[in-house]
Amino acid sequence: MNDRTTTPTDLRKLLLSRIRDVADYPEPGVMFKDITPLLADPEAFVALTDALAGIAERTGATKIVGLEARGFILGAPVAVRAGLGFVPVRKAGKLPGATLGQSYDLEYGSAEIEVHAEDLAADDRVLVVDDVLATGGTAEAAVQLIRRAGAEVAGLAVLMELGFLGGRARLEPALADAPLEALLIV
Amino acid sequence: MNDRTTTPTDLRKLLLSRIRDVADYPEPGVMFKDITPLLADPEAFVALTDALAGIAERTGATKIVGLEARGFILGAPVAVRAGLGFVPVRKAGKLPGATLGQSYDLEYGSAEIEVHAEDLAADDRVLVVDDVLATGGTAEAAVQLIRRAGAEVAGLAVLMELGFLGGRARLEPALADAPLEALLIV
Repeated sequence: MNDRTTTPTDLRKLLLSRIRDVADYPEPGVMFKDITPLLADPEAFVALTDALAGIAERTGATKIVGLEARGFILGAPVAVRAGLGFVPVRKAGKLPGATLGQSYDLEYGSAEIEVHAEDLAADDRVLVVDDVLATGGTAEAAVQLIRRAGAEVAGLAVLMELGFLGGRARLEPALADAPLEALLIV
Repeated sequence: MNDRTTTPTDLRKLLLSRIRDVADYPEPGVMFKDITPLLADPEAFVALTDALAGIAERTGATKIVGLEARGFILGAPVAVRAGLGFVPVRKAGKLPGATLGQSYDLEYGSAEIEVHAEDLAADDRVLVVDDVLATGGTAEAAVQLIRRAGAEVAGLAVLMELGFLGGRARLEPALADAPLEALLIV
């Protein structure tokens, strides 16, 4: 599926108009896409939530996984809007009790994310929600984590895909036939 | 206002039944209240969101502030449900661009939270949403931050108040006449 055909032009325009470019963050030479103006505007935030909840419905998702921390801000309202359970995937050490962990490579070094495997059942179809698809490292680890927890991956839905970073090419093998839907490609 | 009279018994029972006690987290001797089973149960998560959105309506809030990171999971759906803008208050260094910061004391050392002041207007009434009220340090700093950004504080709404930690006594002077509403006191 391709967002270029599935996201209506007026929704794309509304969302884009509420995303702010911040130069040199988090490091010099990087143009950061700041979504806080979008979140602060209820019209845009509700429209974004509805669009992502629509993807949850089309993919037959039974649970929403949100990736810490901005993925929580988008994923949790989608879960409530679609009437689905929400499962946070957190950075290592942030979830209490028994967790399932998955490490992944960063440009320098590695990182690890964790989930409560007991919150995912074998008959769950899980849609992963995040704000941005960049290189796809965290999303790929989340997909692996969901499968290792015994659940099925319904897809990955993001507000924005940074197309020039190649995350889609990296993720498609991991997603297999599950769709990767981006409302905006920037 | 006192949650003991404003939260219906069946809602309290539903929410309590989905909160899991985890012993010795984050350190030995602490019994951690884990809300992930509640989030994974759509009936409970929707009921929680509705109850908090009801507080937003009763307090005349125009914006919701969520405190990183679990406050994002509760606050963002409340904003969407109530049709209000959402403003994240984050740990220092996590927000791009110009921020307003507020430091506060921890048991050992100190911490700092930040907000995009431009997302709060002088005529905004802001409800702060978080999962747990413990000692109240972060919530107090958030209240100070909102006032320094020029907005009014509509109140603080939490799922759970850990009554034995005395957060309410610490916060009431900072909140002045704004209500502190807890759905559960544990």
